[in-house]
Amino acid sequence: MTTKTKKMKTLNDLFLDQLKDMYSAENQIVESLPKLISLASFKDLKDGLSNHLKETKYQVKRLEKIFSLLNILVEEEFCEGIEGILKEADQILEGQKKSATLDAAIISCAQKVEHYEIASYGTLRSFATYLDLDDEIVDLLQESLDEEGSADKALTKIAEGSMFTNGINKEAVSGK
Amino acid sequence: MTTKTKKMKTLNDLFLDQLKDMYSAENQIVESLPKLISLASFKDLKDGLSNHLKETKYQVKRLEKIFSLLNILVEEEFCEGIEGILKEADQILEGQKKSATLDAAIISCAQKVEHYEIASYGTLRSFATYLDLDDEIVDLLQESLDEEGSADKALTKIAEGSMFTNGINKEAVSGK
Repeated sequence: MTTKTKKMKTLNDLFLDQLKDMYSAENQIVESLPKLISLASFKDLKDGLSNHLKETKYQVKRLEKIFSLLNILVEEEFCEGIEGILKEADQILEGQKKSATLDAAIISCAQKVEHYEIASYGTLRSFATYLDLDDEIVDLLQESLDEEGSADKALTKIAEGSMFTNGINKEAVSGK
Repeated sequence: MTTKTKKMKTLNDLFLDQLKDMYSAENQIVESLPKLISLASFKDLKDGLSNHLKETKYQVKRLEKIFSLLNILVEEEFCEGIEGILKEADQILEGQKKSATLDAAIISCAQKVEHYEIASYGTLRSFATYLDLDDEIVDLLQESLDEEGSADKALTKIAEGSMFTNGINKEAVSGK
């Protein structure tokens, strides 16, 4: 963990700070997702989160690629934002029995994580464009941003179901 | 602050837990926004955040109205997620001089807050629908969700400018 009291004079300084924050966030998420997967009951949710764990590991690699394209050392700036969201998830999920309600709680926590990432990657992609960075960097950030948007939509679909199948929310109403 | 280790058996238990979490989140945001407003330089950003502070105070009232419609006491469940995001904002903004770069950092932090709220209100609105709660409750949650979406888009516009005016990001490239 490095100190954040250093001066940020230009958009480039801020971009690098946010990149390191996101690198820390992604690593924290890689550590936390297996617990959410193990607590989930509904097959589609378990599969969806497992798939997203693979994506997240790839997002870590994308960030490392960006550090390399920028010719700077890979470095973390400890991300307090995602730490808070994950701490909240721990508190909500702790001690609960496996059920549709627990699955709904897992989705709620995971969507808060996705939205943090959507905000961060959106900002990073915008900064990279204004800084006129290499197209490859902008594309790498856009790919992760798109994945986060899709992951969020997929979770909503699992929660709400379809015309043909009940989703988790419907099952959880009666506390099954 | 109440403990979160209580059992959540049904979607209704989870809805109430998340409602109290959001009530804590909104109150923390009301406390923090004046600092962001005082640090901002760009007039559109200062005005936008001031306007959003008014909206946020109204969102607190909407949640209180929901507690009242549900015939339960207004209660907070301390929100660790928003605490982490606001702590991160404090660290990034602390000790920085007023500049376009600081304004860009403020927008980045504020958008993380908006996205937390978008995720939360989206979940609450969905739960309220599945629980077949009063239409007025669903509408109140939808109004706050819509406001958060608009606030996020407005911040992007301030950061990125328009065809006719430079936004904050462009100004921050050279560290003005």
